[in-house]
Amino acid sequence: MRTRAAVAVEAGKPLEVMEVNLEGPKAGEVLVEIKATGICHTDEFTLSGADPEGLFPAILGHEGAGIVLEVGEGVTSLKPGDHVIPLYTPECRQCEYCLSGKTNLCQAIRTTQGKGLMPDGTTRFSMLDGTPILHYMGCSTFSNHTVLPEIALAKVRPDAPFDKICYIGCGVTTGIGAVINTAKAEIGCRAVVFGLGGIGLNVIQGLRLAGADQIVGVDLNPDKVAMATRFGMTDFVNPAEVEGDMVAHLVELTRGGADYSFDATGNVGVMRTALECAHKGWGESIIIGVAPAGAEISTRPFQLVTGRVWKGTAFGGAKGRTDVPRIVDWYMDGKIEIDPMITHTLSLDEINKGFDLMHAGESIRSVVVY
Amino acid sequence: MRTRAAVAVEAGKPLEVMEVNLEGPKAGEVLVEIKATGICHTDEFTLSGADPEGLFPAILGHEGAGIVLEVGEGVTSLKPGDHVIPLYTPECRQCEYCLSGKTNLCQAIRTTQGKGLMPDGTTRFSMLDGTPILHYMGCSTFSNHTVLPEIALAKVRPDAPFDKICYIGCGVTTGIGAVINTAKAEIGCRAVVFGLGGIGLNVIQGLRLAGADQIVGVDLNPDKVAMATRFGMTDFVNPAEVEGDMVAHLVELTRGGADYSFDATGNVGVMRTALECAHKGWGESIIIGVAPAGAEISTRPFQLVTGRVWKGTAFGGAKGRTDVPRIVDWYMDGKIEIDPMITHTLSLDEINKGFDLMHAGESIRSVVVY
Repeated sequence: MRTRAAVAVEAGKPLEVMEVNLEGPKAGEVLVEIKATGICHTDEFTLSGADPEGLFPAILGHEGAGIVLEVGEGVTSLKPGDHVIPLYTPECRQCEYCLSGKTNLCQAIRTTQGKGLMPDGTTRFSMLDGTPILHYMGCSTFSNHTVLPEIALAKVRPDAPFDKICYIGCGVTTGIGAVINTAKAEIGCRAVVFGLGGIGLNVIQGLRLAGADQIVGVDLNPDKVAMATRFGMTDFVNPAEVEGDMVAHLVELTRGGADYSFDATGNVGVMRTALECAHKGWGESIIIGVAPAGAEISTRPFQLVTGRVWKGTAFGGAKGRTDVPRIVDWYMDGKIEIDPMITHTLSLDEINKGFDLMHAGESIRSVVVY
Repeated sequence: MRTRAAVAVEAGKPLEVMEVNLEGPKAGEVLVEIKATGICHTDEFTLSGADPEGLFPAILGHEGAGIVLEVGEGVTSLKPGDHVIPLYTPECRQCEYCLSGKTNLCQAIRTTQGKGLMPDGTTRFSMLDGTPILHYMGCSTFSNHTVLPEIALAKVRPDAPFDKICYIGCGVTTGIGAVINTAKAEIGCRAVVFGLGGIGLNVIQGLRLAGADQIVGVDLNPDKVAMATRFGMTDFVNPAEVEGDMVAHLVELTRGGADYSFDATGNVGVMRTALECAHKGWGESIIIGVAPAGAEISTRPFQLVTGRVWKGTAFGGAKGRTDVPRIVDWYMDGKIEIDPMITHTLSLDEINKGFDLMHAGESIRSVVVY
C-alpha cells in the first residue's frame, strides 16, 4: 500500500512529507493506522545528527496512537479495530529480561530495532523509487500507517482520544513511571525535579499521584512555574537566583535532602546536583534525561557510601503492554492530566513547525493529528 | 583510672604505647575493658595522615571486643560483666535515621564523634601530664580500657572468643552486611567482588551465605586465590592476565553481567569497572572501599539509564546493636568463618608490627590481644 509520511532524508535537514510504499504485516506483525503522534526531543536528537546511532533515511516518531487495520499470521492478542499505542520498548513476556521481574528492557527485538529494521531484518517502508526507508525506535509514527511487531503494541480502551493518549507512548509514561516504577516513591516523601519540560511535568504529576509531601521544581525559566504548579509543584527554585551552593540550598529546603530527585534535563552537571541533594542515608536520584554523546557523570564515592543511590530509567521502567493501558485509564478517570501539556496541534504537513516550536521553547508538546 | 594504650601522637609516626588517664563513664556511658582489637586499614588511613579529618593525639582502633566494667547513670541495657563489641556506627533507635527503616547511619552522636569527643563534648582520655587525648570513631580500642556511649555497644553472647569476634566490629560486618543489607542478594545470583583482602573475603562469604550461584573474585595478586576459594569464590580473574576489555570479559563470564558487584579496593577506576560489569536492566554495584580524598567516580549516564544501580555501604548497612549479635551467633554456629582470616596475633607492645604486616600485604587481619 501507499501512505503519507514525514521522512528524515538526512541528518540536519527538515523532514520531507511524501508518499511512501508500505508493505503489509508479516508473521507476528500488525498494520496500524496512526491517528496522532507527539513530537519528542528524542526525534529531534536523532534528526539533528547528534545521535551517534541515528540512521537515514528513516521515518521518525515514537509517540503515537492509532487503530489496528490488519494483523499478520500468528497474531493473537490484537484484531482489526483495536485501539493501540506503539511501544518503543516492547514487552514480549518471554525473554530473560521480561521474566526477571526487575526491568522493563525487553530484549526480544532489540538488535533489529536498533538497526531500523523489523525483527526479520528487513524494512516495510520504501520510497516510491524503491529506496528502502528505515524504521525508527520500532515505531515510525510520523507515517499515517506503520507496521509493528505484536509485542510492541499496547491495546487501550477505545473511548480515549488519540490526540491526547499518544503522549502516553513516551513522555507521560516516562515521567510518571520514573516515580512509580523506578523510584517507587511513597506517600509523604519529599522530591526535587530538575527541568520543568514535558518530562519534568509528568514526574511532578507522578509525585502528586504518589502522595508526595513536597515537590520542588528546579528550572532556569520562571515561565514554567504556572504550569508546574498546576501539576503539583509545591516549591520552585531558579538556580540563577540562588546565592551560594545549590546543593546546600536544596538540602535545607527539603529539610535534610530529597527522598527522591529526578533529572529531566540531560545535563550531566545537573545530574550531579540531583544526586548530591538527595538525603543522606536513603535519598535516591533518578536520571531520566539523555545526555550528549560522550558526556559523563561524576561524584565523590562518599556520596554513595553515605547512603545515596544513583539510578536511571528508560520509558519510566514501564512494561508497555501491561502498564500503558492502566495509564490510559488513569487519564480517562481524571487521576492524571494530559490536555494542558498538549500546547500545539498540527497537521502532518506542518510537522517541521513542531520542531521549530520545540527549539523556541514555546511548546510543551506538539501533536500531529492525521 | 590509668590504663595502657597505643597513642597516635601525630600523623605519620608509629603509635606510642604508654600509660594514660581514663575518666570513668558519665551518664549514658559505659567503661569497657577491651580484650582484643583488630587493626584495620581505616586506622592506617588516619595514622598515615591521608585522612583529612584525622585528629591528633588520639587513641585509634575501632574493631574491638571486651567486657563491661562499669556503667554510668541511666544506662539500662548493659551491666558489668556483659560482653560487648564497640560500634563506630551507633544505634540510638530514636533518631530520624534509626527510625527511617532505610539506613543504619544513626546520627545521634555524629558531630561529637567526628571531633574525637564523647557526646558531652569532652574526652575521657589524657596523657599523664594532663594533655587531652582524643577518641577515634567513638571507639578507641587501641586502649586496654575505653569509655563508650551505651548506644555504641552491641551486647553479644559470653561464650564467643574475643580474639575472633572483634573482627565483627568492622571487617566481617562490613563485608557480609554489604551483601545482606545493602545488595540484598538473593539465592541464585551471580556476583563479582573486586579486591580479595579482608573486606572482599567477607563479601565472598556473605554471598555464599546468601546462596549465590557464581562468585567471581578479581585481584592482581594470585596468592589470594586459595583463601578466597575457601570462602566461596567460584571464579578468579586477574586483570593483569585479561587481554582486552575487563568489562566485556566479566560480562561474558557472568553470562550477561553481575547481578551484584562490590568494590572492596577503594580505587575509583575499579569502582567504574564494577558498575559497568553489572547486568543491564538490574545489576547493582556497591561501593565499600574508601577512596583517596578528592577522588571521584564517573561513568556515562547511559549505564544507569539502562538499569544499573550505583550504591554504597558503610558498616555493611548494619544496625550494630541489632545485627552484630546475630553475626556473632552465625560465627558460633559455624555459618560463617573468621579464624582463617586472623593471620597474626600480637601484644599491645607489638601493635606497630601489625601496621608493618598490613603494608607488606602479609596479613589479612592482625589482632592485638590484651
